[in-house]
Amino acid sequence: MQKRVWLFREGNADMRNLLGGKGANLAEMTNLGLPVPPGLTITTEVCMEYINAGNKMPDGLMDEVKKALADVENQTGKKFGSSENPLLVSVRSGARVSMPGMMETILNLGLNDETVEAMIKLTNNPRFCYDSYRRFLTMFGSVAWDMDRQKYFESEVEKIKEKEGVKEDTQVSAQGWKSLIPIYKNVIKEVTGKEFPQDPFIQLQEAIEAVFRSWNIPRAVAYRTMNKIDHNFGTAVNVQTMVFGNMGDDCATGVSFTRNPATGENKFYGEYLTNAQGEDVVAGIRTPKPISELEHEMPDLYRQYVDIAKKLEQGYKDVQDMEFTIEKGKLYILQTRNGKRTAAAAVRIAVEMEKEGIITKERAIQLVDPYTVNQILLPCFDSTALQLAKVIAHGVNASPGAAVGKIVFDTEEAAQRGEKGEKVILVRVETCPDDIHGMAVSQGVLTLRGGATSHAAVVAKGMGIPCVAGCEDVKIDAEKEVLIASDGTVYPKDTVISLDGGKGVVMEGAVKLADAQIDDNFITFFNWVDEIKTMTIEANADTVKDVENALKFKAQGIGLCRTEHMFMDPERLPWVQKMIIAGTKEARKEALDKLLPMQYQDFYGMFKALGNEKPLTIRLLDPPLHEFLPSKEDLIATVARKKALGEVSLEDEKMLHVVESLSEANPMMGLRGCRLGLTYPEINEMQVRAIFEAACDVKKEGINVMPYVMIPLIGHVNELKTAKEILVKVAKDVMQEKGIEVEYKFGTMIEIPRAAITSDEIAQYAEFFSFGTNDLTQMTFGYSRDDAEGKFLKRYVEQKILPYNPFDTLDFNGVGELIKMSMEKGKSVNPHLIGGICGEHGGDPDSVKFAYKIGLDYVSCSPFRIPQAALAAAQAVIENKK
Amino acid sequence: MQKRVWLFREGNADMRNLLGGKGANLAEMTNLGLPVPPGLTITTEVCMEYINAGNKMPDGLMDEVKKALADVENQTGKKFGSSENPLLVSVRSGARVSMPGMMETILNLGLNDETVEAMIKLTNNPRFCYDSYRRFLTMFGSVAWDMDRQKYFESEVEKIKEKEGVKEDTQVSAQGWKSLIPIYKNVIKEVTGKEFPQDPFIQLQEAIEAVFRSWNIPRAVAYRTMNKIDHNFGTAVNVQTMVFGNMGDDCATGVSFTRNPATGENKFYGEYLTNAQGEDVVAGIRTPKPISELEHEMPDLYRQYVDIAKKLEQGYKDVQDMEFTIEKGKLYILQTRNGKRTAAAAVRIAVEMEKEGIITKERAIQLVDPYTVNQILLPCFDSTALQLAKVIAHGVNASPGAAVGKIVFDTEEAAQRGEKGEKVILVRVETCPDDIHGMAVSQGVLTLRGGATSHAAVVAKGMGIPCVAGCEDVKIDAEKEVLIASDGTVYPKDTVISLDGGKGVVMEGAVKLADAQIDDNFITFFNWVDEIKTMTIEANADTVKDVENALKFKAQGIGLCRTEHMFMDPERLPWVQKMIIAGTKEARKEALDKLLPMQYQDFYGMFKALGNEKPLTIRLLDPPLHEFLPSKEDLIATVARKKALGEVSLEDEKMLHVVESLSEANPMMGLRGCRLGLTYPEINEMQVRAIFEAACDVKKEGINVMPYVMIPLIGHVNELKTAKEILVKVAKDVMQEKGIEVEYKFGTMIEIPRAAITSDEIAQYAEFFSFGTNDLTQMTFGYSRDDAEGKFLKRYVEQKILPYNPFDTLDFNGVGELIKMSMEKGKSVNPHLIGGICGEHGGDPDSVKFAYKIGLDYVSCSPFRIPQAALAAAQAVIENKK
Repeated sequence: MQKRVWLFREGNADMRNLLGGKGANLAEMTNLGLPVPPGLTITTEVCMEYINAGNKMPDGLMDEVKKALADVENQTGKKFGSSENPLLVSVRSGARVSMPGMMETILNLGLNDETVEAMIKLTNNPRFCYDSYRRFLTMFGSVAWDMDRQKYFESEVEKIKEKEGVKEDTQVSAQGWKSLIPIYKNVIKEVTGKEFPQDPFIQLQEAIEAVFRSWNIPRAVAYRTMNKIDHNFGTAVNVQTMVFGNMGDDCATGVSFTRNPATGENKFYGEYLTNAQGEDVVAGIRTPKPISELEHEMPDLYRQYVDIAKKLEQGYKDVQDMEFTIEKGKLYILQTRNGKRTAAAAVRIAVEMEKEGIITKERAIQLVDPYTVNQILLPCFDSTALQLAKVIAHGVNASPGAAVGKIVFDTEEAAQRGEKGEKVILVRVETCPDDIHGMAVSQGVLTLRGGATSHAAVVAKGMGIPCVAGCEDVKIDAEKEVLIASDGTVYPKDTVISLDGGKGVVMEGAVKLADAQIDDNFITFFNWVDEIKTMTIEANADTVKDVENALKFKAQGIGLCRTEHMFMDPERLPWVQKMIIAGTKEARKEALDKLLPMQYQDFYGMFKALGNEKPLTIRLLDPPLHEFLPSKEDLIATVARKKALGEVSLEDEKMLHVVESLSEANPMMGLRGCRLGLTYPEINEMQVRAIFEAACDVKKEGINVMPYVMIPLIGHVNELKTAKEILVKVAKDVMQEKGIEVEYKFGTMIEIPRAAITSDEIAQYAEFFSFGTNDLTQMTFGYSRDDAEGKFLKRYVEQKILPYNPFDTLDFNGVGELIKMSMEKGKSVNPHLIGGICGEHGGDPDSVKFAYKIGLDYVSCSPFRIPQAALAAAQAVIENKK
Repeated sequence: MQKRVWLFREGNADMRNLLGGKGANLAEMTNLGLPVPPGLTITTEVCMEYINAGNKMPDGLMDEVKKALADVENQTGKKFGSSENPLLVSVRSGARVSMPGMMETILNLGLNDETVEAMIKLTNNPRFCYDSYRRFLTMFGSVAWDMDRQKYFESEVEKIKEKEGVKEDTQVSAQGWKSLIPIYKNVIKEVTGKEFPQDPFIQLQEAIEAVFRSWNIPRAVAYRTMNKIDHNFGTAVNVQTMVFGNMGDDCATGVSFTRNPATGENKFYGEYLTNAQGEDVVAGIRTPKPISELEHEMPDLYRQYVDIAKKLEQGYKDVQDMEFTIEKGKLYILQTRNGKRTAAAAVRIAVEMEKEGIITKERAIQLVDPYTVNQILLPCFDSTALQLAKVIAHGVNASPGAAVGKIVFDTEEAAQRGEKGEKVILVRVETCPDDIHGMAVSQGVLTLRGGATSHAAVVAKGMGIPCVAGCEDVKIDAEKEVLIASDGTVYPKDTVISLDGGKGVVMEGAVKLADAQIDDNFITFFNWVDEIKTMTIEANADTVKDVENALKFKAQGIGLCRTEHMFMDPERLPWVQKMIIAGTKEARKEALDKLLPMQYQDFYGMFKALGNEKPLTIRLLDPPLHEFLPSKEDLIATVARKKALGEVSLEDEKMLHVVESLSEANPMMGLRGCRLGLTYPEINEMQVRAIFEAACDVKKEGINVMPYVMIPLIGHVNELKTAKEILVKVAKDVMQEKGIEVEYKFGTMIEIPRAAITSDEIAQYAEFFSFGTNDLTQMTFGYSRDDAEGKFLKRYVEQKILPYNPFDTLDFNGVGELIKMSMEKGKSVNPHLIGGICGEHGGDPDSVKFAYKIGLDYVSCSPFRIPQAALAAAQAVIENKK
């Protein structure tokens, strides 16, 4: 293990894995000569050592902390626990990847009965000192020793305010705060059985341990799971000299972004409060002032701050989200980090920073999160409808987008109804980490308190859901479950409302939605993406309309056309059923002859819509035949009922018989895919005939078609060999009949583990491999997706048994390993083999990056996900150059 | 490609891959100076070249054949097609692995209208010459040109016999045979449109091609599939100078074994006919004489023959199955090969040859086929019952064993009924290759004609099914479908009879069966096996009785105890159902508390029965819970019916609701195995408690128990880690309560592909891997065994899409590769990892050998299959030493 405790001046920005993001940035800023209060960082490794040892502090750690703290004392001229010039510190978490609001912080540490008096002597401000002390006791009790903050601490503040007859915390007297000290010390002892420690080193150790433990509190675990952050990273702990924004009116504290994180506009954006501590801004207890006002209030400090901000933005080559404190006229930078932003803002910032010469195109592409880029494509409100809509209230435009849904006040209820697909809007006074699961499945979030950097705003932006925050002109009657507008109109639970998160407006009813607006920045950005990416991005499409839609999103071909969807058409289903019920090959052929012209029409239309030189990859019939017949359960019930009543017909019983004979214990692993085609070759023959008749006819019209025939569910080379032999013959026959040649390929889905393992055999007969990652994930895990997701998969992810749902993002260690092996083996016998993903993972950015890394040639996804797949593909090129 | 045509003197016994078994042996014997008629061999490679080119003769091949034939002419002083001293040849197939009776042979080739007259001048025996010519025409027409032998050729023989008023072929006159020549030539032209070729070289080319083509005739393909012979081996073609056993009474032809292939007795065994050709012996048309009579008829030749036989047995270190012909007082050896034998004979021969100093123990072990050794353990008839049984008839003891079943005369019917599990005995006048599929699923075979080397006898022996052959004292009335005994008793179809294949006796009714007799040879042999094998052979056992049975077969432990079988007990099922229906953890615990003492009793009994120092590997509950509840389909029908009649109860509907909520689309891939245990940890906790309470109590009685706890269906390391943590705690708690420590291990089934792929993660938490090869095969292939075997797997094997059923023998390329990878990855992090197979493949000899090769430590199988698994394990050691 490396050095465990680092002074800020010893680290740098590249050390985020060890020092955490916050620690690395504090180190970097310190070395840049910025006014950062001195401090030290305990590494992320120590956190995991602590947790893995069953929450036990590593031997000797506190000695190292003390040694480093002595250096901080030297720098500041203050001394920890000193009764003359005491050093106070903050203790904060800081993981590799920012997890805002997820873990614990303790401020003002070092205060005790003695040092508080020393502070009073130094500051001549007893009110501030007692306030700080009672805040520290609150945080210590609730964070380090797990006491209920509201019950044991905040409730006492209410009593004091009542006693003093004041409404705001800022109005409480010095004596008021002082009187809380013995009360808090008593309740700590009463609840925990332990004395509040006067020794600052004991305070410090307890606080450090609390931060370590907070790595595994439920909301932090949930956040990591949602954001696919490794649970073994651990958090660093930053111990930093306290500076105070609440020592008087020449003090302030604030947070700001170097550019607007909602729109991307190149304009300073943020909020501050005078005479306040940082938590006051974030918690939304007082409504803060916009940062632009600081220019008037403290022009010199504002200019100094802007200079630093620009320097940091250029240094980090990204928008910075900074925290600052002004203590008695001196500016301190407490933190800087790359700022979270909406997708639209990210694109605008990326494009503009490139044009300003701050970053390269490659860097610009890295600045947009492919997981959020879809948001830009989200519908917004129709502008006419918007003009006519009745506005209920205005609030802060906290997270852009348009949301329509029913009012729900209870997080639990929103979580349950939202999960079932119901459109709800969560309405809360303010939100806290416990609300995250309810927010995640709501259409939008409306809060009554807090600004653009409040919890609700930050979280909603991260999730890409619209949010209107700090909407103070409405009220909630929690008991009656109603929302009351300023004009007195009452909106009960379940009333439909609309939110415009980009404008901060709440409206009555369901306002009509319009298509997303794609602006010039978006177009420029995605032109860069197309320049840089090397993988082909194709779309999954089953109809002409799908193809047209895919082309709008710049699909470079169709990677998956599922022919069974065509069979489900109500006009065709009777013929499909006749084909299935057919007892003889002849009867089956007769039904197939009826289906041939219909399939021909499908493919004709798709080839024509797709145009020149783009592959149309058509998967031959895949699902088990019983999917085209009535449900067995329904038939059993019908026949039993009719029998009991003496009404059963021969027809009923015959259909039941057919359905029962096709019924399988595990249909996913039964007679489907190529197994079906090898059992009834005439089905695939009909399909291939339709494909090539259509391809030839469209080619005759001057379009250079590229039919790719894909045989599904291959597990053994002989399946492919046998099926291909039959079908290539049909293709050749048709081309001869039509008197024209088309360029075509035959390939296979790789979706059975055995196919991946024996790809060196299979690739001898395949021109392309299309990884059906949904089925491959099912078979590799032994999960039936329908069963697993309902029955245990969600719990597995919650309990950290699985790091994430492998149907959302590829399981790299297992399924990914198989895909890698398959391509390696395949290319060993067929160097020209084309490889791609056509499962849903083809649109998942992390999975796309994996696909690039292992040398796949293309991914195919739903049209709507093409931009995010393309962006991920471009980022993959850049990331792998490094 | 190597040299394509080899003279016998150019080859040797080690060249069987290239020259085929027969060709290599003819070469070896030629070089040993034995009296082998000279000839040449065309390699197996040429056969595959011919087939792969679409049945086209390779360029220049016939020139090479002619050149070699010139050498044969020099050796014999005869000339192909000569009108003075013509050379006649046989053309026979000969693959790497013997496939008796599967492919084609043509004898007497070289005869034409001219050479037949030359032969008459030379032999002064027109009858013999015309007989030979008409035989050649018959074989040429039927084999080379695919004509129906019975319809176009044999029927004419019947007419001649009728005309001449004789019954036997031997009685037909020279003129009679001569008159067939123009008739045959005409019918050949009529049916094929081609003239019978007078040019012997054209005859030869046609015959060679026919043999090549016969590699792929259906019965040969079926035989290879059944015996897992590679379809790409091809057959060699042997062209050999004809010698004639049918030139008079100083001629003979016969086949014999150096030891008795039914009992293993060290005594010459075989049959011959004077004045006959080889096909007469094999076809069973004339009943041949035992070889012992030759000693009296031709004592010098007999002695010469015995000398050669002993020499060959010592040279090949195995029992030889030889063909000989005596032509005018001169002995020729036409073929030698290792003799097929019954399992009991194989064991006796192996043990005795070792004692005679001919072979080593290792060689002895190699001489017994593990796939047949089970036959020895087959039941025989109870000796008292046998004495009392009414004998219907006596025949030849063609293949040992006891069979009881219903008489069926039609092969197709026997095949169909036998496949369904019905016990039938196939009764035929004689059998031919087309009867194989009916024989395979019959309990036994009874034929009316043919001896111990007839088709029925050879095939039945190979399959390990009892056969009584040449039972001439009964008759079949095919039309009435009855068997008529010599005393006139009529046994209609479906009458139950019993066959004693070892004694050659047919009996009325179902004679009582007794346990198999294990003799000293068997015991000696398996002691050697135990000395040599290094893998541990364990048994699958779910009850005390199973354990006792396993120990009888020398099981070294229990590799798989399935606890769900215990749950199915009718006494327990109600509690199991209560546990499942339980809505709360408490209700579930209550039901589990009832089950605990019952599970305790199970394990207590098994530990005690198993005794000291043997692992008892217990798999925790595995199947989906709905398997313990009534069928959903039945419930739906019941509820629908009762509803229609207004009789439905709340109880009915409630049960249906529970069953529906547990119902899964693909239960094999749903909530089962460890997923169940992680969902309801209390179930596994109860099981582990029962295991350890029992283990502790039995250990207190002085037995050193070894509980191995096996967690099923692991796919991700965290599943194992989480489950193990909980269960190890239970184990430790119980041992503390009981105040005694037992040696135990925790391990996992590897049956999910992902577990195999990520074994380097999983092995960190497992002390053993038990490969559940049935499920692993299902998941790796994406086959639901129940669905696949009924719906397409059989057809896949028949159509050669799969080389064999991967549920019988491990799929080495796919599933095997995964197992290999898993062990390699597992051992890379845990060098002490124990690996074994507990699926059904654990008893399959080829799979056992594979297990050895990749370094597994044990296999576990059903008790009855332990000897064959042990033998395979010993052979694996020997084979891998080479």
